[in-house]
Amino acid sequence: MGQDALSGNGLPAEFGFIARIFRPLAGDGALDLRDDAAVFMPPAGRELVIAADAMVEGVHFLSDDPSDTVGRKLLRCNLSDLAAMDATPLGYLMTVSMPPARDEAWFAGFASGLVRDQEQFGITLLGGDTTSTSGPLVLSLTVLGHVAPGRALRRSTARVDDGIWVTGTIGDGAMGLLARRGQVPDPDGFLAGRYQLPRPRLGLDLGDVASAGMDVSDGLLQDLGHMARESGVGIVIHADQVPLSPAVRALGPQWLSTCLSGGDDYELLLAVPPMNEAGLQAHAARAGVAVTRIGQVVAGNDVQVCDAAGHVMAFARRGWSHVREAGG
Amino acid sequence: MGQDALSGNGLPAEFGFIARIFRPLAGDGALDLRDDAAVFMPPAGRELVIAADAMVEGVHFLSDDPSDTVGRKLLRCNLSDLAAMDATPLGYLMTVSMPPARDEAWFAGFASGLVRDQEQFGITLLGGDTTSTSGPLVLSLTVLGHVAPGRALRRSTARVDDGIWVTGTIGDGAMGLLARRGQVPDPDGFLAGRYQLPRPRLGLDLGDVASAGMDVSDGLLQDLGHMARESGVGIVIHADQVPLSPAVRALGPQWLSTCLSGGDDYELLLAVPPMNEAGLQAHAARAGVAVTRIGQVVAGNDVQVCDAAGHVMAFARRGWSHVREAGG
Repeated sequence: MGQDALSGNGLPAEFGFIARIFRPLAGDGALDLRDDAAVFMPPAGRELVIAADAMVEGVHFLSDDPSDTVGRKLLRCNLSDLAAMDATPLGYLMTVSMPPARDEAWFAGFASGLVRDQEQFGITLLGGDTTSTSGPLVLSLTVLGHVAPGRALRRSTARVDDGIWVTGTIGDGAMGLLARRGQVPDPDGFLAGRYQLPRPRLGLDLGDVASAGMDVSDGLLQDLGHMARESGVGIVIHADQVPLSPAVRALGPQWLSTCLSGGDDYELLLAVPPMNEAGLQAHAARAGVAVTRIGQVVAGNDVQVCDAAGHVMAFARRGWSHVREAGG
Repeated sequence: MGQDALSGNGLPAEFGFIARIFRPLAGDGALDLRDDAAVFMPPAGRELVIAADAMVEGVHFLSDDPSDTVGRKLLRCNLSDLAAMDATPLGYLMTVSMPPARDEAWFAGFASGLVRDQEQFGITLLGGDTTSTSGPLVLSLTVLGHVAPGRALRRSTARVDDGIWVTGTIGDGAMGLLARRGQVPDPDGFLAGRYQLPRPRLGLDLGDVASAGMDVSDGLLQDLGHMARESGVGIVIHADQVPLSPAVRALGPQWLSTCLSGGDDYELLLAVPPMNEAGLQAHAARAGVAVTRIGQVVAGNDVQVCDAAGHVMAFARRGWSHVREAGG
């Protein structure tokens, strides 16, 4: 550690390999990954936003996922964290702990995917490290972005009467994992694609329309709980208003609970004051992103999900069941 | 991923554990590790310096190393990268991929060590992530610092006639690993301590005295090779001038090659113009750090090590042997 910004600790014979695979990803500030660290001048007058996430083979991605999707998934999950705070990406650092079974061809595919995403999102690699490991492949990524001072969206500032909105569709990631495991059909690969390649909802310019925001990664219901708890409010959502993709709808209503509680959505969850709803829709239309109102913030401290008939649905440990309200 | 800045992906039941262990490490900008990312205003008029490193159990630290040293070792290795560029630390992010065998008591010790180092180095945790893994413990850390614009030290700017200097003593880390394995005596634990807890050489204020710098982490000879290659120069050092600790000297001269080629020193390697040598020594004295001149930069493109008689020593694959120069 401490040598080249992307050096090969535990992999001395692989020095050339590291250079071939990772150096082409490096940006200007990375000093060609030859120095101990990257140096850059932050954008004047902007706050910096920084987040780190790790992914482990077999936990967050599958061993046989296409190599060009694996690094991009982690990058996109981190970019989703920036999107959740209304930040603009600057660059990223990555560490890779490699099991011996992954060969150079695999990592060439891995890097080619990152190159495509670097172009798409306008960022470069600022530094990192590679190590060997006897265990599964572990990736760790730190992403840097910037935001207007005091304008970063937070999850703790939802207010009573705000509408609760989500971007895109919910449940594709969770169903995509089941599709990858062969547990549900996925004829055109749409669901697997959503599991493997999240779409960070950058560029929505939410700072002046949303009162709170976060990304949906642990599952919609758990994340609603985070927002409610951190904001000191209650949230009511309507299950039939949660946007589902045609692919999920085609699988049938029995998967609703999986979609609401499964993870890997990487959509945005927003609290938006009623007076800003038109503004949100205008911003979303400009960015080409669908937004859907699924409920609202109420006084209280819990999350309730109502069915189409207005009945509260109760979450059982592994799914949902209808609960008849008193007198209902 | 993407939820709490230090969320428990793959560890849903451990949410409270994560909060107990890691939240006390969080600084102001980290938003209490409750949001998607940390937000902070960078120091005005300063360049940012950023580096990432990973450590794997069994590769970079031993399974039975004291838990309070494991996180600190990685933090200090990263801080050494900042020291190498003459940067001042700002904060860090960390991801932890945990095998099931490590229990909460182990991580409580892990965090207590980090708390001590945060105080010592004046930094806090800005964010991170925890995941489960079926493999060995993997840590990844990103450190942020700042430096005066254009003043970051680089390894590629050594010039002919510069003196080559190192801080502290060389070889303690490599011998400390052997001591931990029972291969050499270490009666007072000094060597093991140097292996487990590097001392990042921060605060030397080198920008106005050194023409190039890097930290010694891959082994002195390999790192001299990096500096020579990146700078387009040759380097000659004198083996008998390389500073060794009393503990290493007590083990006998047969360990010299291990000390020169082993890793884990985390001392600084500096190229200093002759006119700045007094300045370097004054800065070092003020910081309480020993500095030693071990050689100089010459025209050429390789690294030569001379013995006390002035003969060039040749590096064999696993050690050193004396080579009689032509006519010597």
